[in-house]
Amino acid sequence: MSERRDLPEKETVGFIGLGIMGRPMARNVLAAGFALVVYDLMPEPVNELVNAGASAVTSPAEVAASADVVLLCLPDSPDVEAAMSGPQGLLAGTRQGQIVVDMSTISPVTARALSEKAAAQGVILLDAPVSGGQVGAANGTLSIMVGGDAAALDRVRPILAAMGKTILHLGDSGAGQVAKACNQLVIAVTIEAVAEAMVLAAKAGVDPAKVRAALLGGYANSRVLDGHGERFLERNFTPGFRTRLQYKDLNIAMDAGRAYGAPLPAGALVHQLYAAMMARGDGDLDHSALVTLLEELAGQSIA
Amino acid sequence: MSERRDLPEKETVGFIGLGIMGRPMARNVLAAGFALVVYDLMPEPVNELVNAGASAVTSPAEVAASADVVLLCLPDSPDVEAAMSGPQGLLAGTRQGQIVVDMSTISPVTARALSEKAAAQGVILLDAPVSGGQVGAANGTLSIMVGGDAAALDRVRPILAAMGKTILHLGDSGAGQVAKACNQLVIAVTIEAVAEAMVLAAKAGVDPAKVRAALLGGYANSRVLDGHGERFLERNFTPGFRTRLQYKDLNIAMDAGRAYGAPLPAGALVHQLYAAMMARGDGDLDHSALVTLLEELAGQSIA
Repeated sequence: MSERRDLPEKETVGFIGLGIMGRPMARNVLAAGFALVVYDLMPEPVNELVNAGASAVTSPAEVAASADVVLLCLPDSPDVEAAMSGPQGLLAGTRQGQIVVDMSTISPVTARALSEKAAAQGVILLDAPVSGGQVGAANGTLSIMVGGDAAALDRVRPILAAMGKTILHLGDSGAGQVAKACNQLVIAVTIEAVAEAMVLAAKAGVDPAKVRAALLGGYANSRVLDGHGERFLERNFTPGFRTRLQYKDLNIAMDAGRAYGAPLPAGALVHQLYAAMMARGDGDLDHSALVTLLEELAGQSIA
Repeated sequence: MSERRDLPEKETVGFIGLGIMGRPMARNVLAAGFALVVYDLMPEPVNELVNAGASAVTSPAEVAASADVVLLCLPDSPDVEAAMSGPQGLLAGTRQGQIVVDMSTISPVTARALSEKAAAQGVILLDAPVSGGQVGAANGTLSIMVGGDAAALDRVRPILAAMGKTILHLGDSGAGQVAKACNQLVIAVTIEAVAEAMVLAAKAGVDPAKVRAALLGGYANSRVLDGHGERFLERNFTPGFRTRLQYKDLNIAMDAGRAYGAPLPAGALVHQLYAAMMARGDGDLDHSALVTLLEELAGQSIA
């Protein structure tokens, strides 16, 4: 394999992390005609991908050695750090000019530190967290928020296009993670806003469904009011997007606020409310279940 | 004038409160062909309406005596209480079965108390606060959220249709004001959510305009992210909707939360941030100027 291949017909893609998101994303890369090399700690998703035509290796370092471009989709910052820098980590197998795309949602501070570490070895690390959930992962309709070298993004764009319909370059290294943190912050605070309004309506003796319908027609309209508000009313707390991941992503947003000197008062409040959700043992409910915490505080369900 | 007129061709409408909202609303009632009787403390808007074909009287009581249906559009709860129950107030001039429609944004607690007081005199009070701002008032495209007797709403619907394109019946007396309070609560908290995200982006060295654009494509999307987020970037804090009114409406929402036993933690936080805006002397800026408070806390402007 050559040191560097500029825009070959189909590059060999490495994929590390075949979880709820990574597995369907990897399948879409394979379905788009790329050769695929996979690695995961769990045998079951590896077998599934191998049966679908991928080859499997036994360490991140081997993925780097076998693939032109490597994608990562892991739960949190420490997982990505281990996959990058551990003894059999990616950076033990990468070569000059190789591109690694981290599609996990992790701390922008970590993303920037790892990018510098990779650059010291001549490796280009892009941060490329996604939004759109399991449905978007399965359908290849994710939004991908990319930070890092623009030319490197152009090289891997055909691979990302197998997984997402919107690929946005937000800026330098870490910018994708910053945008993702902002996204998760806005969603969480908006869920709380809608939950408070609907609980207020219920306690004041007004049908929350009617209030939601009225608010959808004006400046209070949001995708959260629409989608999550409907979940509140239908008591549909099957994820969707799990409370434990929303909490994890708020940890990231608050850490970023602290690192970069941005006070986030509403974010901090809602972070603590999600901490209460975790303490209640509700981590596996959809993040819209935040309304049940408010209902408990108010002593009344809205539906 | 008869005790009661069922669905006459064009009723005589009384209008009390010709302010920023009331004046264009009254003009639209006149333009729709209703006879109009107006009252306001300020001579200038009264003269304008009289020149357009309305007649003027010198007290709310006279409005009630001269009109079939009376509309109110006043700044706050005490103004409506005075116009209803003062010595020359509406209830000194109303008759059995007359309908009064309060289009002000006031406390639902006050609305319900006034409705009971009116009912004791055989008068039907509907609460019908609006959203859509000055533009909606001028164009007759307001959303009108109505609480109170459904049959009375049906009687006055042709009048309301001169001012609004959406007329929703939310429930019994006070339900319109509850819905409006919920609306204002959601908008304020969402403004804060978007402001925090965009300030975080700026402090983390990422272009807030790009972050806003990315977030518009996903679940963080809202009319606030779109419209108010654009105002943040363009530094356009010309109202629009004034901070002092947003603050007043949060006072109402928090009072309602207290009265009905609904804890509103994020609402309370944002209420205090708007209190800081008022303390800074920024009451006459658009409510999107809340972002400038966060910028001050963070020591950096986003644009």
